[in-house]
Amino acid sequence: MTETSSAKPFKRLLLTGAGGGLGTILRERAKAWADVVRLNDVKDLGPAREGEEIVIGDLGDRDAVLAMMEGVDAVLHFGGISVEDKFEPIMNANILGLHHLYEAVHKCGVKRVIYASSSHVVGFYETTQLVDAGMPLRPDGFYGVSKAFGEALSRYYYDRFGTETVCLRIGSSFPEPKNSRMMVTYLAYDDLVELIRCSLFTPRVGHTITFGTSNNATKWWDNKHAAHLGYVPKHSSSEFAANFPDSAAYPAPGDAPTIYQGGPFVTAGPMYK
Amino acid sequence: MTETSSAKPFKRLLLTGAGGGLGTILRERAKAWADVVRLNDVKDLGPAREGEEIVIGDLGDRDAVLAMMEGVDAVLHFGGISVEDKFEPIMNANILGLHHLYEAVHKCGVKRVIYASSSHVVGFYETTQLVDAGMPLRPDGFYGVSKAFGEALSRYYYDRFGTETVCLRIGSSFPEPKNSRMMVTYLAYDDLVELIRCSLFTPRVGHTITFGTSNNATKWWDNKHAAHLGYVPKHSSSEFAANFPDSAAYPAPGDAPTIYQGGPFVTAGPMYK
Amino acid sequence: MTETSSAKPFKRLLLTGAGGGLGTILRERAKAWADVVRLNDVKDLGPAREGEEIVIGDLGDRDAVLAMMEGVDAVLHFGGISVEDKFEPIMNANILGLHHLYEAVHKCGVKRVIYASSSHVVGFYETTQLVDAGMPLRPDGFYGVSKAFGEALSRYYYDRFGTETVCLRIGSSFPEPKNSRMMVTYLAYDDLVELIRCSLFTPRVGHTITFGTSNNATKWWDNKHAAHLGYVPKHSSSEFAANFPDSAAYPAPGDAPTIYQGGPFVTAGPMYK
Amino acid sequence: MTETSSAKPFKRLLLTGAGGGLGTILRERAKAWADVVRLNDVKDLGPAREGEEIVIGDLGDRDAVLAMMEGVDAVLHFGGISVEDKFEPIMNANILGLHHLYEAVHKCGVKRVIYASSSHVVGFYETTQLVDAGMPLRPDGFYGVSKAFGEALSRYYYDRFGTETVCLRIGSSFPEPKNSRMMVTYLAYDDLVELIRCSLFTPRVGHTITFGTSNNATKWWDNKHAAHLGYVPKHSSSEFAANFPDSAAYPAPGDAPTIYQGGPFVTAGPMYK
Amino acid sequence: MTETSSAKPFKRLLLTGAGGGLGTILRERAKAWADVVRLNDVKDLGPAREGEEIVIGDLGDRDAVLAMMEGVDAVLHFGGISVEDKFEPIMNANILGLHHLYEAVHKCGVKRVIYASSSHVVGFYETTQLVDAGMPLRPDGFYGVSKAFGEALSRYYYDRFGTETVCLRIGSSFPEPKNSRMMVTYLAYDDLVELIRCSLFTPRVGHTITFGTSNNATKWWDNKHAAHLGYVPKHSSSEFAANFPDSAAYPAPGDAPTIYQGGPFVTAGPMYK
Amino acid sequence: MTETSSAKPFKRLLLTGAGGGLGTILRERAKAWADVVRLNDVKDLGPAREGEEIVIGDLGDRDAVLAMMEGVDAVLHFGGISVEDKFEPIMNANILGLHHLYEAVHKCGVKRVIYASSSHVVGFYETTQLVDAGMPLRPDGFYGVSKAFGEALSRYYYDRFGTETVCLRIGSSFPEPKNSRMMVTYLAYDDLVELIRCSLFTPRVGHTITFGTSNNATKWWDNKHAAHLGYVPKHSSSEFAANFPDSAAYPAPGDAPTIYQGGPFVTAGPMYK
Repeated sequence: MTETSSAKPFKRLLLTGAGGGLGTILRERAKAWADVVRLNDVKDLGPAREGEEIVIGDLGDRDAVLAMMEGVDAVLHFGGISVEDKFEPIMNANILGLHHLYEAVHKCGVKRVIYASSSHVVGFYETTQLVDAGMPLRPDGFYGVSKAFGEALSRYYYDRFGTETVCLRIGSSFPEPKNSRMMVTYLAYDDLVELIRCSLFTPRVGHTITFGTSNNATKWWDNKHAAHLGYVPKHSSSEFAANFPDSAAYPAPGDAPTIYQGGPFVTAGPMYK
Repeated sequence: MTETSSAKPFKRLLLTGAGGGLGTILRERAKAWADVVRLNDVKDLGPAREGEEIVIGDLGDRDAVLAMMEGVDAVLHFGGISVEDKFEPIMNANILGLHHLYEAVHKCGVKRVIYASSSHVVGFYETTQLVDAGMPLRPDGFYGVSKAFGEALSRYYYDRFGTETVCLRIGSSFPEPKNSRMMVTYLAYDDLVELIRCSLFTPRVGHTITFGTSNNATKWWDNKHAAHLGYVPKHSSSEFAANFPDSAAYPAPGDAPTIYQGGPFVTAGPMYK
Repeated sequence: MTETSSAKPFKRLLLTGAGGGLGTILRERAKAWADVVRLNDVKDLGPAREGEEIVIGDLGDRDAVLAMMEGVDAVLHFGGISVEDKFEPIMNANILGLHHLYEAVHKCGVKRVIYASSSHVVGFYETTQLVDAGMPLRPDGFYGVSKAFGEALSRYYYDRFGTETVCLRIGSSFPEPKNSRMMVTYLAYDDLVELIRCSLFTPRVGHTITFGTSNNATKWWDNKHAAHLGYVPKHSSSEFAANFPDSAAYPAPGDAPTIYQGGPFVTAGPMYK
Repeated sequence: MTETSSAKPFKRLLLTGAGGGLGTILRERAKAWADVVRLNDVKDLGPAREGEEIVIGDLGDRDAVLAMMEGVDAVLHFGGISVEDKFEPIMNANILGLHHLYEAVHKCGVKRVIYASSSHVVGFYETTQLVDAGMPLRPDGFYGVSKAFGEALSRYYYDRFGTETVCLRIGSSFPEPKNSRMMVTYLAYDDLVELIRCSLFTPRVGHTITFGTSNNATKWWDNKHAAHLGYVPKHSSSEFAANFPDSAAYPAPGDAPTIYQGGPFVTAGPMYK
Repeated sequence: MTETSSAKPFKRLLLTGAGGGLGTILRERAKAWADVVRLNDVKDLGPAREGEEIVIGDLGDRDAVLAMMEGVDAVLHFGGISVEDKFEPIMNANILGLHHLYEAVHKCGVKRVIYASSSHVVGFYETTQLVDAGMPLRPDGFYGVSKAFGEALSRYYYDRFGTETVCLRIGSSFPEPKNSRMMVTYLAYDDLVELIRCSLFTPRVGHTITFGTSNNATKWWDNKHAAHLGYVPKHSSSEFAANFPDSAAYPAPGDAPTIYQGGPFVTAGPMYK
Repeated sequence: MTETSSAKPFKRLLLTGAGGGLGTILRERAKAWADVVRLNDVKDLGPAREGEEIVIGDLGDRDAVLAMMEGVDAVLHFGGISVEDKFEPIMNANILGLHHLYEAVHKCGVKRVIYASSSHVVGFYETTQLVDAGMPLRPDGFYGVSKAFGEALSRYYYDRFGTETVCLRIGSSFPEPKNSRMMVTYLAYDDLVELIRCSLFTPRVGHTITFGTSNNATKWWDNKHAAHLGYVPKHSSSEFAANFPDSAAYPAPGDAPTIYQGGPFVTAGPMYK
C-alpha cells in the first residue's frame, strides 16, 4: 500500500514529455492526482508552478533518468518522439530511453506506469477492420515499431517483476478533429484525462493495453481487453460532424493512407523519400 | 475521385425497386444525396418529380439494366423479389438480375453498390443465438438463398475488380413493429436512411456486410464487422413496447417460427404446401 | 401455450428463498407477474398477504419440494445457501435441493426456471479479464462449485427435456455498493427485477446464462451470450462514485481478493481456517 | 432405416456428371457401394455395363431430373459445369440444375447427397492463409459463386427438411499434380474415393462441408469442421516432389494467381477478356 | 520435490475403484510407477499381491477416505459410479465422495490427482461437432452432471491450493469397440495407461482436462488444451474396422442416441422410465 | 522473377552469424541452395571454402551491413546475440543491427529474409498453454524483447514494401535434448534445415511466423499460422526418451522456470543479479 500523507492520492507523479502537446495538457490536469507533479522534458518548461518540480534531461541519459525517478509513486510517460522520424533518434528516445525508464522504475520500486503507446502499432490494419489489443501488431513506421518495442518491454516488466503498466494506444488527441480520419481517431482532452485517471486508480491493472478514443461513431478499435479500466468517454467527434459534410470523393484504388488505419503515417518515413 | 459539379455529393444515384415499400421511402430521402435520382422498377412509378429520372424495366433484361446504369455514380439496389416465392421468379429477379446489375456496374465503372440483402440469409439460426457477419449463412428459403448468392457475387466483384458493396441485412423496416418478433428486428425508416447514408459516405467500405436494425433492446445480431460504417441508430422498438405487453404464452416445443430467427419465413415456401 | 385466466401473465409463480435478501425484494415485485406468488423458505415468512401463498419447507426434503411445485407455471429459484459454508449444508441445500427442484419441475410440467446462480462460478478469473458465459468455470469456493453444479444440471434438463432455465450470475445486489469491488459487481434492485422480467417473458430462452449487473463503468463480464434477453439496465454504480474517491492504495502483490474477481470469497472457506 | 436386400449397402446410387473427369473414375469405384449405379450426363456415356443404368439428360430440365431420381437412395452429384465460364450456362447447370436436383431429392425422399462443391468458393483467400469451413466465402469466379449458391441451398434443405448433404470442396483431383499449386491442392483418386465413402457411410452427417485433399505437406485448408467424417488420406503430393524441384523464381509482386488460393481461376472469366 | 528412495518414481500411489473395469487393468499396470500401489474399492479385491496395499471402504465415508490417503504421493481416482443411475447414489459416491477425496488430498499434501471424468460431461453435443475442453459442458445424465461437478471441484482446488489434477474424459475403454459409436470413442487399454503415465509424469499439469481416445479415424474431440501432456496414442479403432462394415442404415430423424455424442446415455436415466 | 544461371536455385545467399552454433551447421547445409554462400560474423570464420565468400563485420556498423548485402538474393539472418545479456549490447546487435539489415535489404532489393527469431518472444506463457503465432507476445528477457522488435520491424517491411520474411521462433536446436524442457523444444538439425528450405522455397510467404521444433510428443506451440510452409519434421525428441526416465520430482510451487515456457531464461538477466 502506498502511503499518502495528504488529501491527494499520490505524493509524487512523474510526467515525462511535459512540454509536448499532450504533456502541456497533462501538466495542468495531473495536479488533481498528486501533491507534486515532477515534470521532465529535454526542452525548457518555464518556471515551476505550485506543486511542480522540473527536471530537464534526456531519456537517452541513463543517470538522468535514474535521478528523476527518485521518490516517484507513478509515471505518466509521454516523453520521446511521437512522429515518424529517422531510426536513430527514435531508437535513442523511444527504445534506449524506455529501457532507462523501466530500469529506473524497477530500481526505485515505482508501482505503475501509464505509457503513451500509439495506435500506430496497428496502423497497417485496414480501415474496414476492427482491431483489438489481442491481435498481432502491424506498425506503420519506425515510430510504430518503437511503440511495439515499448509494449513488449513493459509486458516483460510485468511478467517478471509485477510492475504494472497501462499502454495507451492513443488515436488523435487535439482540440478538434482536423480531417475525416480524425473523426474516427479523435480523443477529446477531457476523455484523455479520464482515461489516464482510470488507468491510475483502478486498483489492479496488470499489463493493460487500451485504445484511446472518444465515443466516436465510427470505430476501428474494440476495447474489450480493457473493460476493467472503467473508462467511459463523454465526448464524440460527432460534435464536429458539421465540419466534415458528406462527400462522395472516394479515394483512388490503392491509396494507402485511406486503405490503412495509420493514415498519412503509412507513407511517411524520411529514409525513403 | 468522383467529380461533382454541385453541392450534392453525387451527380446521379440509381435506385432500383423504387416502387416497393422501402423504395418509396428512399425515393424521397435519397434526394439529399444526389442531383439526380434515377428510379427503376418493373411497375409504374408515376411521373418523374424534380431531380428524378424514371426507367421502367426488368432486372432480368440484360440490355435494360445496362442502359439504366449509364452515368450512374452509385447504386441503391432495392429491386427484385423480397418475399418467399417459387424458385424460378426469384432466380430471374434476384440471381440473373443481380448478375446483370453487377455486369453493368463493372462496365460503367460504378464505384459503390448498396445492396439490400436480408437477415433471412441467417434465418435458420436460433433466437437464442447472437449472429455476426463472419458466421456461415443459414438461409431460410429460396429468397434467403438468393440473397446468399448476392452476397457471394458482390464479394467476388470486390475481390476481383475492387467494386465496393455494402450488403444490408435488413431486419423489418416498417412504420412500427407488427408483432413481437419485430420488436427484435425493427428498423425505423430514419435509421434505415442513416444506415444507407453511412454506407454511401464512409470513404472506404470494401465489401461490408451489416445488419440493419434500430437500437432495439433484444439483439440477435452483432454488427462488429461493420463498426467502420459509423452507423448509430437513433430509434428503438422500445418506443412501441406498450403494444406488446408481457406474456407468458410460451411457444409450443418444436414451433419453428419461434425457434428460428427467420420467423414465419422458415415454414414458408409455396412449392411444399 | 400456457393458459391464463386473468390480466396477469402467470397464474402462479413459485419464489423460493423468499425470506432472503433478494427474496424479500422479489416477494413484492413478483406480484406484477402472477395472480398468485407462492413463497417458500425454511424460515418463517410471516402471514401471507394478498396474492400470496406460503409454503415453509426444506429443499432437501423431496416430498416437500414436490408438493410446493403443484400448480406452478414458473419458478424463481432464490433458495438455498448463498454464502461460503461447509460442504455438507451446501450439498444438502444447493445440490440435493436443486435435484429435488428439477425433479419436481419435470414431473409437474413447469416450463421455465429462473435460477439464481452466481458470479462466484467464475470467481477465480482475474480482475483484469473479461469473462463471458462460454468460458470454462472457475468457481471460488464450495458455494461457487454448487452453483456450477446447478448450471450443469439445468443444462441437462434443457437438453434432455426442453425445460428452459435462465441462470442469473448475479454480482452484488444490495441497496448500494459497499466497497470498491461492488462498484464493478453492483446490481440495483430495479435492474435485478428488470432482468428477471426479461428472463420470464422472452418468448424462448432455451438454457441461457447471463451475468447480472447494472450498467457499471467497469465491466468484468460480457453478456453477449444473453443478448436475446433484451435486458437494458437503467442504473449504474456511478451513482455512488462519490463514496469511493480515487485512491492510490494499490493492493499488495499476491493479494488474492484483489487479484481475483471473487473478492473475499476466494480466501473464505470454513474448513481451512 | 434404408432397407437393403443385398450385400451392398445401397440399392441404387445416382451419379451425375458420370462422363466427366471425376465421374469416369467414380463410375467404376461406386460399384462397390450399390447394386445399381445410375449414371447421368448430358453427353453419351457408352453402353451400360453390369450394375449400371444410364440416363442421358440435362440438369436444367426439371422433368428429366425428377425422372432420374426415382428409386434412388443417395446421390453423388458431380454434374454441371466445373470450370469458369459465362454466367448463363453456369446458372443453367449449377443453379437451376441444382434446384431441380434438390426438388427431386425432396420429392423422392432421398436421404443424402454428396455434392461436388469446390475449393474455388474460397479462392480469393491468400496462399498464406489457413481456411476452414466456418469462414466466409470468397469465390473466385462465376463458377465459385455458383458453388457458393449450392452450399447455401443444400444448407437450407438440411435446416428445413433434414436432407443431409456433404459438400466436397475438392482441390485438384488428377492422376498427379500438374504444377506447384497442385502440390498443395492435390487429391489422389484413391483419397477422393475414400472421402466419398466416408461421406456416404458416416451414420449422421447433417450438413457437412469438407475440403478434399490428400495428406499434402503444405496445407491451406483446415478440416476441423469435418472431423466426424473419419476421412484419413493415404496419399500425399510428396510422392511427386521430384517433379517440382526447389526454385527461387519468386512470383512478381501483385501476381494474383500466386497471391490467391484460386490460382489461375482468379484471373479467368470470359466476359472480361 | 517428492523424495523417492527407490528406482520407481513414486513411493505410494492410491488407486480407487480398483475392482472396476479399468481399475482391474490399472491394478497391474500401475506397479511400474510406485513401490506400493494402495488399492481401494467398496467390494472385495482379493488378497494383496506384492507391492500392493488393500483398503476396503466407501468414498462416502469421510474418515475412511482420510485414512486411506495417509502417505500417498498421488491418486488415480477411478472410484465411484460410472454409469447412469438414480441421483442419490451418484451424489453419495461421486459428489460427497469426491469432496472427501479432495479434503483428504489437501490435508495430506498430496500433489496430484488423476481423475476419471467422462466424455459424458459433453454428451449432448451433436455427433457432427468437434468439442474441446474449453467449451461449455453439456452433460447427458446425472452421471455426467456428477462429473461436471468433479471438474469444477478439482479446478477450485487447483486455483485455491495449487493441487494439480488431470481430468480424463475417457471415451470407451474396453478390449475392443462393441458398436459403431465406439469406433469413435475407443480407448485401447495400452493408450489409457500411456495417457495416465503422461498425466503423472509431466512436470507440471496445473488443472488439465483431456479427452481419452486412441488415434481413431473419426474425431469428436480436439485435445488442443492438453497438448502439454505429450500423449501420443499408439492404437486406433481402425484395427477393428472389419467388424463394422459400411452400412447405409441411416438413423431415423430425431433418434437421439445417434444425434448426440453421448449415445445410449442420452436416453438413459432410471427416474424417468 | 529471380534469374538463376546455374542448377542451384539462388546465386548468392547471405548467412549472418555464420560462426555461431546454428550458423556452423547452416554454413554446410546452405551450399545446396546457392552458388555462393556469403558468410558474415564478427569473429573469424577461417578461410573461405569452395562456394563461400566471407565478410567479417559488425551488424551495428551500417556501412558494413550495406556492403555485405550487395548482390544477395536472400538472407539467412542468424547473427546477433542469442542469449540473455545486458540491454546495450543486445540493442546494438539485435535492434540497431536489424535496422541496418533491413535498410540494406530494402536498398538492394533483396526479396526474402529468413529471420532467426526465438520462442523466447513467448517465454512467459505457461507450460500448460498452447501458443500460436496470432497470440500477444510475452517475452522473457531483453533478448526476447529484441526479437519482438525484430518481428515488428520485419512485419513493417512487408506491409510497407512487400519484403518477405519468415520469422523462425526456434526452440532448442542442439545435437540432442539436454534436459527435460528440451524434450518439448527440441529441433533436430535436419529439421532446422528442412524448415529453412521450406521458408526459402515456398513461392510466397508474405510475413510468416513459425515455431521451430521437431515432431516432439509434448507441444507448447501450434503452427497453424504457418501451414502454408509445408514443413514436415522428420525427427522427434522421443528418440532420446531413454535419457529422461519418468520422474515424480515435481517442481516446487512458484518455481518460475518450470511454470513458464522460457525455462531458465525467465529468471536470467544480468542487470538484476
